[in-house]
This record gives sequence, structure tokens and C-alpha cells, in this order.
Amino acid sequence: MKIDILTLFPEMFSGVLGHSILKKAADKNAVLYNIVNFREFADNKHQTVDDYPYGGGAGMVLKPQPIFDAVASLKEKHGSDASRVILLCPQGERYDQRKAEELAKEQHLIFICGHYEGYDERIREHLATDEISIGDYVLTGGELGAMVVIDSIVRLLPGVLGSEESHLRDSFSTGLLEHPHYTRPAEFRGMKVPDVLLSGNHRLIEEWREKESLLRTYLRRPDLLKKIILSPKQVKWLDEIKKQYD
Amino acid sequence: MKIDILTLFPEMFSGVLGHSILKKAADKNAVLYNIVNFREFADNKHQTVDDYPYGGGAGMVLKPQPIFDAVASLKEKHGSDASRVILLCPQGERYDQRKAEELAKEQHLIFICGHYEGYDERIREHLATDEISIGDYVLTGGELGAMVVIDSIVRLLPGVLGSEESHLRDSFSTGLLEHPHYTRPAEFRGMKVPDVLLSGNHRLIEEWREKESLLRTYLRRPDLLKKIILSPKQVKWLDEIKKQYD
Repeated sequence: MKIDILTLFPEMFSGVLGHSILKKAADKNAVLYNIVNFREFADNKHQTVDDYPYGGGAGMVLKPQPIFDAVASLKEKHGSDASRVILLCPQGERYDQRKAEELAKEQHLIFICGHYEGYDERIREHLATDEISIGDYVLTGGELGAMVVIDSIVRLLPGVLGSEESHLRDSFSTGLLEHPHYTRPAEFRGMKVPDVLLSGNHRLIEEWREKESLLRTYLRRPDLLKKIILSPKQVKWLDEIKKQYD
Repeated sequence: MKIDILTLFPEMFSGVLGHSILKKAADKNAVLYNIVNFREFADNKHQTVDDYPYGGGAGMVLKPQPIFDAVASLKEKHGSDASRVILLCPQGERYDQRKAEELAKEQHLIFICGHYEGYDERIREHLATDEISIGDYVLTGGELGAMVVIDSIVRLLPGVLGSEESHLRDSFSTGLLEHPHYTRPAEFRGMKVPDVLLSGNHRLIEEWREKESLLRTYLRRPDLLKKIILSPKQVKWLDEIKKQYD
């Protein structure tokens, strides 16, 4: 997968792209990152990328020309019109794991990271194929959003995670929140691990985990339960949970 | 505000904390960042921070001891029991602007960034005061989540944003998505700015913006409309929008 990132702050990315899974993925050639400062595409002599908003008001707006030309240059370089052009912005579609799985199938992604008050609307209407918001909160720019989306996608690419890091049991991948995890010691400063996990009875352990996953989802994120089809066993457990907690 | 970050990947933070608003805030002494590798607190000779999960299964679990001791050391250093200890995890409360505003009032925040399969549950139950998820997607670790939360909080601290960067009209601060922005040129490669914005009539411009903000929210995020109280004028406009778009 090729990932181009358009930003005014290229240095923001080195720490995140240069460590952990994102670095490993690049080392394995599963992904190629390319960071472009779109200021270099500004066709005015002062390399200005923003200007005052029409109609007045506070803040500066990103001009269309540098971003349109930067995207055109990347598409020409990669010889592809099929690229997804992703705008990070609070007005975008709310990002979720389903979208991560969809984007992980693409060959070429271009991320546009805004800064300042916002983008000229023509970038949104005529250049972006996707507008993504990573959540209902306001960030300084699109850079962190791009890093979040890239991290969630790259770890899904074939060969990136080892078998020890499988994503099949992740929260959201199953539609439920994950069950609790415990590791040694069995007692830490008076706090104990549940007996069942020390029992060696794999059937009981599996059942405990499935119930805890369901319980946690019910207590913390009941909205997630509406999005999945529960098995008959899960329906029965959920009834028991409701009797106990309602 | 003091912000401590517990992580196994301290180098991930330099790019993000060293640029843009997060750097400016530190330069103005509005915030002090302190990054701690909690591996340094491991009391075993190999400085191991993770171990196999009780009950079996793939992945490694973060042990309680290094994280408990790292947090204790930070609380002792800052002489405060009032610190918020924030765990980034997919099972957490879904982060939003209201939570950012709440956390921005604190004096001392400690962020714990997990990695690998998850945290020992005792960290969650007995150490964390808040569990936060930045969205319904799976990330490699808690580091990006911490950066996102920190960015959203720091920009709310007094004196951090200049008047030109006011956050009062941001998306989510008003409860609605922002209206479109346009800047020069008035026509770019055949794409035009709406006439009203060039009219100089400030009353009409303000009305256009309010309506566009309402329209965009209705089309993209109708769930947000249920969370706010609309003015009588907005109710009337929303009725008109519904007639036109339903």
C-alpha cells in the first residue's frame, strides 16, 4: 500500500511512523509512506497556503490551489486515478473499524491534513473522496487524525501483525468489547486474579471470557449490542446479565 | 497543567509534542510534558513489563507492578493525590468534547499508554480514574490516543490559542457541524464561491452560515441535533430543510 500524507507539519510524523508496528510494516515493505509539505506546491511567490475567509470571521482558510496541485502531482506519479483522497475534518464521517477494513483493501491512499480554521469548501466537494472524523472532539489539525487512521489500517495489512498479535479477537472486530486480561502474579498487593483463570479448565475459562465480554459491553457500550447478531447462548447470558444488573 | 505520559515508546511523542500548538503551549508554560518509560520501573532483573495471560490465549498482557510503581512515583513527585490517571483503551468511555472540557480544568493528568494485548485488569480497577477510548477502531497502542486527548485538552487551556484561533465556533463546541469556508480566488478552475459570501451583506452571510451549519449537521450527523436545544429560528429552518431533503 502506498500512503501519501499532505501536511504543513511533516516533522510531526517521524515519531509515530518511525516506531512500533508502523515502522515494522514499512520495513517489511507492506507499506510505503510519503510525506509531502503542500506548501511546496503554492504557486504564489510567498508560498502562502491560507487566506482570509470570504464573508469575514476569525481564522484562516486553506486555499484550494496548493492542495489540488499536490494531489494531482501524486496521482500523476503513481499513475492512478483510483486513489482515495481522504480529508481529515470534524465534519467527516465518523471513523470506525468497518471503515478501517474497507480502506485496508486499497492500493493507494492520500491523506490531507488541514490546519487553521478549515479547508476551502471546493477541496471538500471536488477533490476528496472521503471525509473522515476520528471522533467528536476538536483537534489542532488533521495530522493526528491521519496518524490514527493510518495506524488502524496498516495493522490490518497482510503480514504486518505476527500470529501473536492477531487482530481477530480485538475489541470491535468481534462487535463486543474485550474481556478482562490478567497476568502474573496471581495476587498483587492483595488484588487477586479470578479463580476460574487459574483453574486450568479451558471450557470454563472460555465461557467466563465470553460472558465478561458480553457483560462489559452491556454495562459500558450497550449501543454496540444493537449492531450485532447474538448467538442463542449469548441471548441467554444477556438475559441473566439484565436480571442481575437492571 | 502537568501532563505525565507513561509509555514503552517515548520517542513516538517528540514529533507531535514538539510542533504546532502543543509546542507553543509548552513554550508559554501553559503545560509541562513529562514522558516516562515505565519499563524503568520494572523490579525484575530483565525489566520485563509483560507476561502471558492467565487462562491462555494469544498476546501478552502488561503486568501491574511497573505501572503501579510508575504512577506512585509521579504522584509522590507532584505531591498530589488529586491527579487523574487516564487509561487509553478500546473498552473506555468514548471521548468527546465535553470530556476534553472537563479534563482541561485539572492540574495534573497522568496518561497510561498500553501496548500489546492489553492491561492487567487490576490496573484498570485499582489505579485508573478514567478509561478513555478515542473511537470505535483498534490501534496498535495507547500512544496515539494519548496524543489526541492531550491535543484536544491543551488547546483549551487559557492563553494557548490566540484570538485568531478561537475555539468558540469550532465544530462540537456549538453542538453543530461548522458551515463551509471559502477563500480566494472567487473562481478556481470553474468552481465558484457562493454569491452571498461576496455580497458584503453581513446579516445575509450570518444567516447563510447558520443555515449551512444546520443543514450539514442534519445531512451528516442528525444524532447531534438530538443533543442540543435549537432556537425557534433554527427549528423553523430545520423544518424547511426537512421539507427539501426528505
